[in-house]
Amino acid sequence: MAPVKVFGPAISVVNIDFKALEHKSPEHLKRNPFGQMPAFQDGDLLLLESRAIGRYILRKYKTKANLPREGNLSEATMVDIGIEMERHQYYRVISPIVYGCLFNPVLDGVPTNQKVVDDSLEKLKKVLEVYEARLSQNTYLGGDFLSFADLSYFPFTYLFHGDTVRIAIRQVPSCEGMVGWARGEALHQEGHRWHCSPPEGISRSFN
Amino acid sequence: MAPVKVFGPAISVVNIDFKALEHKSPEHLKRNPFGQMPAFQDGDLLLLESRAIGRYILRKYKTKANLPREGNLSEATMVDIGIEMERHQYYRVISPIVYGCLFNPVLDGVPTNQKVVDDSLEKLKKVLEVYEARLSQNTYLGGDFLSFADLSYFPFTYLFHGDTVRIAIRQVPSCEGMVGWARGEALHQEGHRWHCSPPEGISRSFN
Repeated sequence: MAPVKVFGPAISVVNIDFKALEHKSPEHLKRNPFGQMPAFQDGDLLLLESRAIGRYILRKYKTKANLPREGNLSEATMVDIGIEMERHQYYRVISPIVYGCLFNPVLDGVPTNQKVVDDSLEKLKKVLEVYEARLSQNTYLGGDFLSFADLSYFPFTYLFHGDTVRIAIRQVPSCEGMVGWARGEALHQEGHRWHCSPPEGISRSFN
Repeated sequence: MAPVKVFGPAISVVNIDFKALEHKSPEHLKRNPFGQMPAFQDGDLLLLESRAIGRYILRKYKTKANLPREGNLSEATMVDIGIEMERHQYYRVISPIVYGCLFNPVLDGVPTNQKVVDDSLEKLKKVLEVYEARLSQNTYLGGDFLSFADLSYFPFTYLFHGDTVRIAIRQVPSCEGMVGWARGEALHQEGHRWHCSPPEGISRSFN
């Protein structure tokens, strides 16, 4: 356990050893009955599902940035759309690439299935064209404001900083803008900077 | 187009002919750039992603039932968790069954791949055990109140009323309670009643 400060009071982080199947242990199943990550406890409240946990933290520890924008009907809805698109469009096509290029080889020693990666890259290209169109009209996914929608892309997109995925992504001619967005140029303009790990750091994050 | 009254003012429904690929037409791509259903327009606001559309409607046309529960931090979060679980757990394992048993044969004439269905039923069993545990403690997924979480299960769960999926589901010993929940007994107690279609009605809904 390590204390971390996120918005408000310090929180304790419980590291899970995937290789030792700690995420399937009775102790972790109390936190997340599906035996998955993440889980979040605040007093008696046990939460699962990363997007729901994110909303909870943002609602409880309100910041000036007002990342969920729930007080504004149309802005909150555009944020919702950006978040839903992440799961139903972006994650759907990027996850076979990330798993195939990074997680499977690192965690399970399973070699990359290049055909799966290539097929996903083709699908990703079409998905990214829609993102390009939206990002050509607004700086951020919800509009001209940084929101929870942009943050929801972080868990997989920060891996673009690593050479393996970034090189694969750069094979897609249409998505230079997406790579720029993923690398945090837009966030950087706001004084934010995404912290990124090199590919060799990914295995460490699972230990 | 047909006018329908949902909460507030009448809305016009645009029917999409899947077999004629109308969902890939330039006209529909303006509504949903991914060429998918649904899309929703309210004035200048063009919305996509069903869960975001649902939240928008529930926020705009507030009802006494307060289905999103956004005014209450812990209740809103439990609703969020129920919604996220639908997409990331329930839909993930139920969709190969629904597509394999119903949509693929009806829409594309593709015969059911029984192995895919059987594998998904095994996965569904494990997922439903978690739902059973949660529903044994509360009447509804978000707690002891009907919420948007319960409604989010409707699009696929109402198909349980049809014999094909229901019979497949009833092969899973653990999920009798889930079938009861899916059939609307809990909702019925509140004076609500889910409208359901027989299997032969499913093809009509795509025409």
